[in-house]
Amino acid sequence: MGTGELWIGDDAAILRLPNPSDPATNSRILLTTDTAVEGVHADLSLMSLEDMGWRATTAAVSDIAAMGGTPTALVIAIAAPPDTNVDQLAKGIAAASAHYGVPVVGGDLTNAPQVVLTVTVLGHAAGETTPTARNTARAGDSLWVTHPLGGSAAGLRLLRADPHATGPAIDAHRHPFARLLEGRTARAAGATAMIDVSDGLAIDLHRLVDASGVGFELDTLPVADGATEAEALGGGEDYVLLIATPSDLALDEVFSTIGLTPPTRIGHIATDPQIRTLRGKPLARTGWTHAFGSPP
Amino acid sequence: MGTGELWIGDDAAILRLPNPSDPATNSRILLTTDTAVEGVHADLSLMSLEDMGWRATTAAVSDIAAMGGTPTALVIAIAAPPDTNVDQLAKGIAAASAHYGVPVVGGDLTNAPQVVLTVTVLGHAAGETTPTARNTARAGDSLWVTHPLGGSAAGLRLLRADPHATGPAIDAHRHPFARLLEGRTARAAGATAMIDVSDGLAIDLHRLVDASGVGFELDTLPVADGATEAEALGGGEDYVLLIATPSDLALDEVFSTIGLTPPTRIGHIATDPQIRTLRGKPLARTGWTHAFGSPP
Repeated sequence: MGTGELWIGDDAAILRLPNPSDPATNSRILLTTDTAVEGVHADLSLMSLEDMGWRATTAAVSDIAAMGGTPTALVIAIAAPPDTNVDQLAKGIAAASAHYGVPVVGGDLTNAPQVVLTVTVLGHAAGETTPTARNTARAGDSLWVTHPLGGSAAGLRLLRADPHATGPAIDAHRHPFARLLEGRTARAAGATAMIDVSDGLAIDLHRLVDASGVGFELDTLPVADGATEAEALGGGEDYVLLIATPSDLALDEVFSTIGLTPPTRIGHIATDPQIRTLRGKPLARTGWTHAFGSPP
Repeated sequence: MGTGELWIGDDAAILRLPNPSDPATNSRILLTTDTAVEGVHADLSLMSLEDMGWRATTAAVSDIAAMGGTPTALVIAIAAPPDTNVDQLAKGIAAASAHYGVPVVGGDLTNAPQVVLTVTVLGHAAGETTPTARNTARAGDSLWVTHPLGGSAAGLRLLRADPHATGPAIDAHRHPFARLLEGRTARAAGATAMIDVSDGLAIDLHRLVDASGVGFELDTLPVADGATEAEALGGGEDYVLLIATPSDLALDEVFSTIGLTPPTRIGHIATDPQIRTLRGKPLARTGWTHAFGSPP
């Protein structure tokens, strides 16, 4: 792991970050937290507790991916009714922990009327460059997405019609992936800004240009198999990375060179913050609305 | 603060720990998480959302105090019904953040049927010695508590009898303090082991000796004004520190020298893990039971 926990059964976990002798690494620590609520982020009639654990861990790790960072440690807070099969939830968390190569170093288990799972990720950004923020896109930058969009939303639609449905869209909904390698590669290649698409492209792209004080013009949109364009724009929880790069950077070639699926160039950053279009038409801020309301 | 967040409105907060040029500091990072659930840890008919925010932050910071560490950054995950006065909750968190000198660097706000607040604290342990663990108490060590016990439980009892009651026990229940300075002082003075009393002395002391493979003999027990001895043993959420020191260390004099209220010596660590007594009689593992069940 590169980490060396001394003792994790204590009040707090004690961690060593990779390269303790390198102040440049240690001075750039990443910290993020993400909550999944039964009935809001996870319909337990359509997915298992194991799926919920995987997804919540993926959602939190994805925030580290979107900075071009590497996760170092997870702490997990579970609030759940006493009859909850916590082992199943933990199994999904453990699978994600193993897949992303990041240990669970602490946690808190308590009772609540429904399952609320909060995953906090400590990470770091090695190397000489700063982590890739969302507020640093520049006019003229190319915009890329690492994968087609809308798969998770399509899967949820199919599951609501038939809880026994199977297929790639169902997998996309129940078992999404955080794109750590893609994020680190984009940062290393010189990406100017990055965000993960957790609430839908048509929200998260607006967030990126809002933070950067620019606009966007999209030419195309890769839609996941079985999904609609509306799902690709408004569906959340795909954890695709949206990346801005200098216009002369062929990010697809960089990805291909190291064996990653090439990203798709979907458009570019416009100077005028008022310009926000898809194929020449205004693209409104629409996206994923969880069961009890809209995301913050 | 000693911290220098570069940008906190991003996917993850980017932090600089104090003394980035000191690998010894940076290599000992502390991480802990703690959840408070409406109706389990906080009865909102007997305390305000502001109190709930203060208490949850205090509970999480207390875990850093119990390692002799210093909190560096907080991330907050709030799940709450749409009509919740989140500003009140945030007010209590902000007050604790200011009191403990630790910034909130990130968070997540989502909807849930009731208020679930998860506070995660990143901390560090400066200096040459390791953080003070709970599994390192040694036979013959003296045992100390920093403050009288049972105040919070007494306050809850009084509030249940009269929701308009006031007084020190009510304050202890609604507005407890994490003992950061006491924890750092105990560590610097040479404490061998430490834990914060969050679930009751008669649970947390058993945890300390279980982890250390020893027993205990208590001679006395300081009881908070208005509390019973049962509340001092079994009541949780006082956040008093329980400290083991070498028998020749006069921790009370160390505390007095720097102007801290002297701790009370309550007994000593026994060699035999089976010996667990108060005034010569066996002290059972009893403690705080939250509304929906017992703590893990």
